[in-house]
Amino acid sequence: MTYCLSLLCQEGIVFISDSRTNAGVDHVNVRPKMRVYTVEGDRLICLMTSGNLSLTQSVVALIEEDLMLAKNEPTRPNLMNQPTLYETTRYVGAKVRQVDRLDRAALAADGFGFNINLLIGGQIAGQPPEIHYVYPQGNSLKANRESPFLQIGESKYGKPLLDRGFTFETRLSEAVKFGILSMEATMKSNIAVGPPLDVLAYRADSLCIEKRYRIEHDDPYLREIQQAWGNGLVKLVEAMPSLPFPGTPQPGAFEIT
Amino acid sequence: MTYCLSLLCQEGIVFISDSRTNAGVDHVNVRPKMRVYTVEGDRLICLMTSGNLSLTQSVVALIEEDLMLAKNEPTRPNLMNQPTLYETTRYVGAKVRQVDRLDRAALAADGFGFNINLLIGGQIAGQPPEIHYVYPQGNSLKANRESPFLQIGESKYGKPLLDRGFTFETRLSEAVKFGILSMEATMKSNIAVGPPLDVLAYRADSLCIEKRYRIEHDDPYLREIQQAWGNGLVKLVEAMPSLPFPGTPQPGAFEIT
Repeated sequence: MTYCLSLLCQEGIVFISDSRTNAGVDHVNVRPKMRVYTVEGDRLICLMTSGNLSLTQSVVALIEEDLMLAKNEPTRPNLMNQPTLYETTRYVGAKVRQVDRLDRAALAADGFGFNINLLIGGQIAGQPPEIHYVYPQGNSLKANRESPFLQIGESKYGKPLLDRGFTFETRLSEAVKFGILSMEATMKSNIAVGPPLDVLAYRADSLCIEKRYRIEHDDPYLREIQQAWGNGLVKLVEAMPSLPFPGTPQPGAFEIT
Repeated sequence: MTYCLSLLCQEGIVFISDSRTNAGVDHVNVRPKMRVYTVEGDRLICLMTSGNLSLTQSVVALIEEDLMLAKNEPTRPNLMNQPTLYETTRYVGAKVRQVDRLDRAALAADGFGFNINLLIGGQIAGQPPEIHYVYPQGNSLKANRESPFLQIGESKYGKPLLDRGFTFETRLSEAVKFGILSMEATMKSNIAVGPPLDVLAYRADSLCIEKRYRIEHDDPYLREIQQAWGNGLVKLVEAMPSLPFPGTPQPGAFEIT
């Protein structure tokens, strides 16, 4: 399983991914799912993937093949020379479709779905920061001010906190906390999502990697925030008002007396 | 959609269900999903249902048909005369299988799954309080001290809080809050789960309905706890320590420079 999350806010973008993959409970491995590509001062692109690991690897392999070949052939279309982030997303979508042509039929013949989803985000110089979702069909969706986060993989456990408190106006440093706590809720409820966690806090217009962190499973910060969050939540529940039950049953009951 | 939850603790059981059903976005209706059956001093059985509304109605209709006919035929097997809660659960499972024989083939012919799940809980005099999950196949699973809650329907949004803080040792009054907040997280993230909410807090060995409450959408308590919880969560995020980003990128980055 996988959980990847990108949070778009006024000050920039937070990207967070876990690193656990599993094919049944007896094949649990560490596979980082975040890749960051930068040409300092020109653009930063962060790519996160979920789904069938073979499919996501194929898409990444095709993307990196283009990047390698573009060194000797600069006009070759690649991840880092598209005019906009929208076109960058379409470029990635085209690679998804290429892998679809390579593998979908063979997978379907054995009953496997074509399961691959990607998040792409970052900034190109002179343009705003953006985050996009690329579907298994290769089409895409962009986050905006009103719907400022995108998730792939095991997305439900970590969503209520974001729905509750994260907005486009949230400070970048707070957005990092929201992201980590969303990930933490997911790790707590699904053992197939786990550390190390990759965190990139991208500051708008920096066009480079300033703040990146790999949180290992024994990271003191992770232990600290898990404990503080757990204790804080339980105290918060205790502080909530109690339901004022009436003394008698309410209408709507079916009762045999 | 539906979310129903039962929480087993030392002092008793909390049952909570929402009341929203939808068949597409243009058929959203109110359908309470909790039914409580009592013979005071002898037993209390609470039934909650999720899935295809026609199937859950059929199962309930068959159960209530037996109850009605048993008035003139007291030895007729029914929900309220089984020797144990396990047998009560098997009785309900048998009704699920009866509806399976009635409807599964016709549904499957048009591509519909046989989607029905139930939670059954309560207490029979002289026996401990129990909660059980009944699957679409009619078999069942019982909660225990180590895994003290069961959910049906849209279960993921509301699970992290329970995983974090609810245990068998949680007081009954606190368990009510955990249940309502789990429901609240679900309503926040899935518009197809909504009030009125039915809440039953069953105190062990009471063998009657003491504390039952229907929370309507404009209930002052619901508004109060939603606001207090939302504000409390955001403040709790603010109080969390910040991720100590290092000054330089971490290993594992793929960078074009």
